[in-house]
Amino acid sequence: MRDITIPTVWAPNAGLVDLVLDDGREVMAAIGGGWWASRRLVPGTRYRFSIDGNPPLPDPRSLAQPEGPHGPSVVVDPEVFTGRVEFSIDLRGKVLYELHVGAFTPEGTFDAACEHLDHLVELGIEAVEVMPVADFPGLRGWGYDGVGQYAVHRSYGGPESFARFIDECHLRGLGVVLDVVHNHQGPEGNYLAQFGPYFTSAHGTPWGEAVNLDQAHSRDVRDFLLGACRQWLVDYRVDGLRLDAVHELRDDSPKHYLAELSEVVRGWEVETGRKLTLFAESDLNQPSMVAPVDSVPGAKGMDAQWADDVHHALHAFFTGETSGYYVDFGTAEALKQALTRVFIHEGGWSTFRDRNWGAPVDVGSELYDGHSFLCCLQNHDQVGNRAIGDRTAQMAKVPAAPQGSTALDAHRPTAATADPAEQALGLQAGAAALYLLSAFTPMLFMGEEWAASTPFPFFSDLGPELGPHVTAGRRREFEKMGWEVEVPDPQDPATLRSAVLRWDELDRPPHDRMLAWYTALLRIRREHGDLRNGSLHSVTVDVVSDDAVLMRRGKFAVAASRSGGEVEFALPGEVVLSWTPPVQTATGLRVSGPGALIVRTR
Amino acid sequence: MRDITIPTVWAPNAGLVDLVLDDGREVMAAIGGGWWASRRLVPGTRYRFSIDGNPPLPDPRSLAQPEGPHGPSVVVDPEVFTGRVEFSIDLRGKVLYELHVGAFTPEGTFDAACEHLDHLVELGIEAVEVMPVADFPGLRGWGYDGVGQYAVHRSYGGPESFARFIDECHLRGLGVVLDVVHNHQGPEGNYLAQFGPYFTSAHGTPWGEAVNLDQAHSRDVRDFLLGACRQWLVDYRVDGLRLDAVHELRDDSPKHYLAELSEVVRGWEVETGRKLTLFAESDLNQPSMVAPVDSVPGAKGMDAQWADDVHHALHAFFTGETSGYYVDFGTAEALKQALTRVFIHEGGWSTFRDRNWGAPVDVGSELYDGHSFLCCLQNHDQVGNRAIGDRTAQMAKVPAAPQGSTALDAHRPTAATADPAEQALGLQAGAAALYLLSAFTPMLFMGEEWAASTPFPFFSDLGPELGPHVTAGRRREFEKMGWEVEVPDPQDPATLRSAVLRWDELDRPPHDRMLAWYTALLRIRREHGDLRNGSLHSVTVDVVSDDAVLMRRGKFAVAASRSGGEVEFALPGEVVLSWTPPVQTATGLRVSGPGALIVRTR
Repeated sequence: MRDITIPTVWAPNAGLVDLVLDDGREVMAAIGGGWWASRRLVPGTRYRFSIDGNPPLPDPRSLAQPEGPHGPSVVVDPEVFTGRVEFSIDLRGKVLYELHVGAFTPEGTFDAACEHLDHLVELGIEAVEVMPVADFPGLRGWGYDGVGQYAVHRSYGGPESFARFIDECHLRGLGVVLDVVHNHQGPEGNYLAQFGPYFTSAHGTPWGEAVNLDQAHSRDVRDFLLGACRQWLVDYRVDGLRLDAVHELRDDSPKHYLAELSEVVRGWEVETGRKLTLFAESDLNQPSMVAPVDSVPGAKGMDAQWADDVHHALHAFFTGETSGYYVDFGTAEALKQALTRVFIHEGGWSTFRDRNWGAPVDVGSELYDGHSFLCCLQNHDQVGNRAIGDRTAQMAKVPAAPQGSTALDAHRPTAATADPAEQALGLQAGAAALYLLSAFTPMLFMGEEWAASTPFPFFSDLGPELGPHVTAGRRREFEKMGWEVEVPDPQDPATLRSAVLRWDELDRPPHDRMLAWYTALLRIRREHGDLRNGSLHSVTVDVVSDDAVLMRRGKFAVAASRSGGEVEFALPGEVVLSWTPPVQTATGLRVSGPGALIVRTR
Repeated sequence: MRDITIPTVWAPNAGLVDLVLDDGREVMAAIGGGWWASRRLVPGTRYRFSIDGNPPLPDPRSLAQPEGPHGPSVVVDPEVFTGRVEFSIDLRGKVLYELHVGAFTPEGTFDAACEHLDHLVELGIEAVEVMPVADFPGLRGWGYDGVGQYAVHRSYGGPESFARFIDECHLRGLGVVLDVVHNHQGPEGNYLAQFGPYFTSAHGTPWGEAVNLDQAHSRDVRDFLLGACRQWLVDYRVDGLRLDAVHELRDDSPKHYLAELSEVVRGWEVETGRKLTLFAESDLNQPSMVAPVDSVPGAKGMDAQWADDVHHALHAFFTGETSGYYVDFGTAEALKQALTRVFIHEGGWSTFRDRNWGAPVDVGSELYDGHSFLCCLQNHDQVGNRAIGDRTAQMAKVPAAPQGSTALDAHRPTAATADPAEQALGLQAGAAALYLLSAFTPMLFMGEEWAASTPFPFFSDLGPELGPHVTAGRRREFEKMGWEVEVPDPQDPATLRSAVLRWDELDRPPHDRMLAWYTALLRIRREHGDLRNGSLHSVTVDVVSDDAVLMRRGKFAVAASRSGGEVEFALPGEVVLSWTPPVQTATGLRVSGPGALIVRTR
């Protein structure tokens, strides 16, 4: 491990680097390879670097920024962030829970979050996934515009608080995944380019120039990112990383950055004796993403990747939304394909992208399985990138009865489900049953388990230069898409406050019913090997009607419906769980209104 | 073939497209897929397109621009540019000759160029490679900033003149390669972006946004480029294309544009019954570039690629220049590696690029051979991208005797070679022998064969907006590199004039001697299977001294020296050709001064 009490910095084009302390400055020594070193400093010392006499800047590898990205760095005692609990977990196939520390509790710190870890254990969660903690400007933010890769944001409690949180999770048997953003740095407080060629114009990304992973000096930039991974996984003892939007890690070199990361992490596993798991958020729909390095061309060696197509298929089917990027989704057939073959776009035309997209998943592959794909019904993006951040149970609607339908019965609202709010809960329940009992690695979004009333809108706290642009830009974006709602101002502190979970909801109707449903589903998953395994070729799905599907895995069947009326499933067997009470008929089970039931068939 | 007498245009975002004629305008019909069609027009009709009422623009697929890129397009009779001579040639391993039509003769037209085709046949040339003809602004230019992919520049004589030139070449058994630039369009007169998403910010190139080969609507952009290829290869009957800087064809889609082009061209070969050859100018040093599509990961299916490392190894060894991108070149060892393994950077560190680079050539590969690599001593870039465009025989110098050398004899100038101009000719002769008798596909640059006195500096004829920037930018560039010479003004008509070959030189000393040397070398190559084949594993090179190498191919040996003194080669056999008369010694052959000799060893 680098000796973090001797600040060093890479500045290959500098003629002179000064260490700037509160009480003076001193020249640093060039130690080769573009690196500069100072003398040993005691923990707590505030320092900055001045390159060629220019205004002092924070350390790119700073561990803590007590005044934010624009202020000085501070030397941190390595003892502070060294994990203390012996723990190891393989996160493939485990039940994950995504949370934003700042909105998880009113206090918004890791220490406050620890108070609710027991709730997660009782619910059946096996690992928490923490949205990015890397230092970003201001006090509020989602974290995807971070600028301090090695520092834990001060408003979450800094390095000490995060380290305590990890220990507390491990003590309860919970793994910890950290979301890291290596594809760009935020627009404010990003001083990296002043140190060296961290960015390149050879690739354009939605955020501008790409991080330099394949041009001159890219070896040093890759090491900068790999060093941050090592700090989280080895020093802090985080169990896995979620890599943001890896399709924007633009790298044409022979060994792609992700493949190198995968190989390096395999080495750290041997070194630490712990399993470490890499999750990629990938838009590419390429199974090679989760194939071991060198097994197939383009293999990236990720342990798992987010499968947005599964989310879209679930969301569009159960909420009825089929506009924008949901355009190729929404049917029972699409839902069947997603649950059995993962990708909807597997080489064919993507209407939203206006080009062919993806490659097929081999359900019999020995290189990956269903657990290699993470699926969810809600996550920070799918909830938060909506105009008002509303959730499934606030937006879902049962389909209208088809015009001129002769099968009126099927869509006749029943007394039990005629209430739209009640129907919306049933729609969420149906979706949850399918994905929590799927062959994938499932992930909940905080509060989803009790159909939390709190939204998760986008929030930020940028400075006076960029802040107003974010507010206006966000409004314009949703206007252009035709949303006719008042978009909350991301910069208004009330917007983050509106997202803070209301923990008093969870034992009140109707939230308690949803919580019981999720808890029961996770118990069933946990207790039965047929549902825990990641075998994709053992999953079958029947399209029962336009509004209902039947998923079978081993001796279990999950029947889910989005219909406001009655649906009959030809299902012999024992009902293990049902959202609404089913009626036994001569040929099967009849359910009323949206929801799901789980049957043990043999 | 498209019916070019009915102008059609792709403008997917237009609400309305007008056909603008000299005497009025009419609305075009939307025919689906973003395409618009007009009625049939008679050849000679001048036309433009107006999109959504905006100022009229030339046709992106225009065949002729009589007033240049800013003026109207003109309907061309397809008869005009249809090749008439039955001819087919496989260009791998053939002797190519690169020429710039505008500087090849004082007239600068294809018709004038025809006058010198017999010279090329007598020299032993098998195909000419024509620098880009695609329409560009102004009357003078190298052609790499073209903007009319389908049009032949008016100053070269337009479509008719080019078609006649191709027929005349074919009548003499000469193939024709056309240089095409698909990686960017020039900065002036490029109206493509007003028609559709031809460019994308997803990739950055030295010229700005990349051509859109992999984003939304890329199918149409790829078809635009493929259509131009078909026009040259199938309609005009060009025998091969040289694709400029393919490393800037930025394409992350599953089937790379080059691989698709390769497959499509294979289909045209079947259709036409002619062999068509694709040459890539690639900086990537990846042998997969010349491996058949689908044979190995990343295979691009090119027939051959330019091998700059071979040029650099030759140039640096024989001229003594080792600065800039020649930094890893210049030794006899590097020359040996280039002649036997093609790439100097084959996965290891490239000092100039500041990163690892390339992958090794498998000399025993069944997917490609030596003919898959095009090598040269001069070409438009290597001559023209010098400050003053000077050539080998104007710059080459023998190495100085090492300080404190005890082997003074080896560097003692002899009477025959003490003249620096004479030595420079010997250096070119030595380099020529090695590359013309190598296992590669050799290419000469016009005038090289007689050590032409004319330089080939960069020239252009841009408008008043960009012109002055080009002049100033070019001067600044060479100043920064430390060249202390007066850089000719690219915009000055005298600069192109200075490059025009002086055909009266070629039978005058010392030019006649060099011409005889090249002619003799090419005759030897042509007459002996040992030298014509492309087998890389049959090539061996011995480093005889710091200043001399010995290349063996079958029963032939090529001994080349850059030394100003005497070098002895242990070579039994019959001397076939020698730049300076060798002296038979007890153990071999001794030569004085730089040059080469060819021996038949058994």
